[in-house]
Amino acid sequence: MQVTQLNWLSAADAGRAIRAGAISCEELAEACLARVREVDDQVQAWAFLDPEHALAQARALDERRKEGAPLGPLHGVPVGIKDIFDTADMPTEDGTVLHAGRTPAEDAAVVARLRAAGAVIMGKTVTTELATYAPGKTRNPHHPEHTPGGSSSGSAAAVAAGMVSLALGSQTNGSVIRPAAFCGVYGFKPTHGFIPRHGVLRQSRTLDQLGVFARTIEDVALACEQLVGYDERDPDTLPPRARIPFLQIATEEPPLPPLLAFVRTPIWDRTEPETREAFEELVAHTGDRIEEFVLPDSTRDALEWHRTIMEAEMAASYVVEYEKGRDKLSDSLRAQIERGRRITALEYQTALARIPQLIEGFARLFERYDAILTPAAAGTAPRGLESTGSPMFCTLWTLAGMPALNMPLMQGANGLPLGVQFVGARGNDARLLRTARWLATRVGAS
Amino acid sequence: MQVTQLNWLSAADAGRAIRAGAISCEELAEACLARVREVDDQVQAWAFLDPEHALAQARALDERRKEGAPLGPLHGVPVGIKDIFDTADMPTEDGTVLHAGRTPAEDAAVVARLRAAGAVIMGKTVTTELATYAPGKTRNPHHPEHTPGGSSSGSAAAVAAGMVSLALGSQTNGSVIRPAAFCGVYGFKPTHGFIPRHGVLRQSRTLDQLGVFARTIEDVALACEQLVGYDERDPDTLPPRARIPFLQIATEEPPLPPLLAFVRTPIWDRTEPETREAFEELVAHTGDRIEEFVLPDSTRDALEWHRTIMEAEMAASYVVEYEKGRDKLSDSLRAQIERGRRITALEYQTALARIPQLIEGFARLFERYDAILTPAAAGTAPRGLESTGSPMFCTLWTLAGMPALNMPLMQGANGLPLGVQFVGARGNDARLLRTARWLATRVGAS
Repeated sequence: MQVTQLNWLSAADAGRAIRAGAISCEELAEACLARVREVDDQVQAWAFLDPEHALAQARALDERRKEGAPLGPLHGVPVGIKDIFDTADMPTEDGTVLHAGRTPAEDAAVVARLRAAGAVIMGKTVTTELATYAPGKTRNPHHPEHTPGGSSSGSAAAVAAGMVSLALGSQTNGSVIRPAAFCGVYGFKPTHGFIPRHGVLRQSRTLDQLGVFARTIEDVALACEQLVGYDERDPDTLPPRARIPFLQIATEEPPLPPLLAFVRTPIWDRTEPETREAFEELVAHTGDRIEEFVLPDSTRDALEWHRTIMEAEMAASYVVEYEKGRDKLSDSLRAQIERGRRITALEYQTALARIPQLIEGFARLFERYDAILTPAAAGTAPRGLESTGSPMFCTLWTLAGMPALNMPLMQGANGLPLGVQFVGARGNDARLLRTARWLATRVGAS
Repeated sequence: MQVTQLNWLSAADAGRAIRAGAISCEELAEACLARVREVDDQVQAWAFLDPEHALAQARALDERRKEGAPLGPLHGVPVGIKDIFDTADMPTEDGTVLHAGRTPAEDAAVVARLRAAGAVIMGKTVTTELATYAPGKTRNPHHPEHTPGGSSSGSAAAVAAGMVSLALGSQTNGSVIRPAAFCGVYGFKPTHGFIPRHGVLRQSRTLDQLGVFARTIEDVALACEQLVGYDERDPDTLPPRARIPFLQIATEEPPLPPLLAFVRTPIWDRTEPETREAFEELVAHTGDRIEEFVLPDSTRDALEWHRTIMEAEMAASYVVEYEKGRDKLSDSLRAQIERGRRITALEYQTALARIPQLIEGFARLFERYDAILTPAAAGTAPRGLESTGSPMFCTLWTLAGMPALNMPLMQGANGLPLGVQFVGARGNDARLLRTARWLATRVGAS
């Protein structure tokens, strides 16, 4: 692949070129739109995309530059937004006919932050039905007969196919990591409470976490600098404190070579044989800076605790959709909601009470290790578009609210990407990116 | 009553006298213990009280003063602690035989704060069974055949009877305001999240709120200065910010005469006739600085929302007590837990979702009014010791997590105290105390 077209520039490089006057915002937007015209009939990443509206934003940003206005760190960078994030200037339909034609009055908190940083809000990317399992129209950019993963299907595919350099997603189980792994891009879901969720479809207050897709770690860090931070309208964002210099930390060398924990997880037997082989090789390649760490068998129960919380909270979040439109829900979502309605408050609270215990357990692991290395999924993207694949390799980390990153370091025999999941201690997100960059360099992927 | 005995000194006055060297900590503790010997056979306020241990603490504090050590704001002041707050040097039995002989290894966060401020931890005061409804042994100090209210029965009675000037309590429904009203003392429950609950029996994470009993507003403010503040071990304490100067704010004059909202609440028909008359008189006496404010009828449903949350969370909090010792629980508590176990996660979450709506509604009221004036209970303390009376006049304010103060301003025909409840905007606790002092002065009670 020759990186000569502007649409393949990283967000950081594009921003630098725009600030330096080497390219205009309009040229960059036009290059991305040209790529959309070229590949999106096949990829189908977009739920809403109005090229004229994207170009108008880009031209307005060029005007501001000419006027000498201060330029934000994402000035002129087109960003894709999963179609569960409210946008004041575009519909937000949440992947369900029940919300067709929905036009929010106000941007989600993070969309407003992106605009303030100068981004071009390119369009809305395809989500699965209400950010759950039933797939949207998107196909894997590496092979149209394979799933792109979900629920943030369009965001992962749009970044992978070079239609944008950045896109927003969300994860309640494996909805950032899995599509990033299947599409072969970086996907990062920071610590629970780091990115405010105001204006984003709520599926599960306890589990919903926002994230970002990019093609470089530097871009992940650049996006995090804009997205992470307290917002009183999301009561679960972490208390205000000094802004984290993601970009600076992520791009510096670790003071000491990091030590990684290779975690097979109690569901290792669910991985495909080539995944097991690939991980053994990666571990061997990482040499003395990695050790195997065996999680207690009880963490297998995390799948059940997660399901109890997610389904109980889905039943509450989607009560109107269920009570007024259950015939328009997919069978699988209806079944999930109906299971959720039968969960007792005691079962729900018992599952919730596991989370702080789980967090405490991992805190000990991170006294020795800098990051956990573990599969992002059972294997490469499954063939077929009727399912987005299983999130089970993400569940434990999502439940504990830990920062998780998919690294596109490997490939399956079918040529499709095979993801490496990198998990860090809660709150140590920037250092996790630094460690990831160290690993990428070490294995020759950066 | 002649206030010549040291035990009747306010905490603020006692602290000043000790710091000035006019009295010793030991003299004050001895005066309080003498009062215990005089009246506690009848009042029965204490679950645990070792006079020697209290005197030993007082003597140690006298030593520290002699050594010239810096003296805390409560240096030498005896404080009663509800027997659901952990104490490292005394048993904590939670008002149930199931926890008999329980000896925590560590002080509750607020007990540690009191010790750091120089307080003498006098002993543990009687709580109802697990801070719920089934009464302990305490009697109303004004009349031994009347209930002292609950669940913080011993703390309210000990302060009312002059055995201590300060005591800690907790409120999940009406457990600070009601006993304060029935015993005729100030009882203050600050904003939810203001006082950390680490080391206190959990009944309901959503509703449990800590508070304090005193005989003057100044003492309430003095205690709050020690008790209020962030603690990371209680995930619901409000984010760290500048320490609130309670004492300074509470004792200054309001910049403008406050405007009060007289709120009958949708359950006004449950008050006794003399309560209605007394409130009409108080309102007339307050003149043009009070207006009637009619709450929407929907707030009547708050009783049901509160019950759903409280019983669902009790079922989870007391799961071990129920599963291993249900035959040792009172019939009423067992019935509550059993109702709680039948609540679905959906019903529970639906009730929880009402709280932010309720808070938003009250925020508008406080744009015009400085405080709400409303009954603390249906009337004076009911006759009989088999019940602690109804908390229903506290439920709405507890559910919304608003600061609430009982003011001992009135009396029933039977000579028993009749409480006035004063409720403020969330977070405006110190100003609520200032407004309360203004009212107390205006009606000649201070």
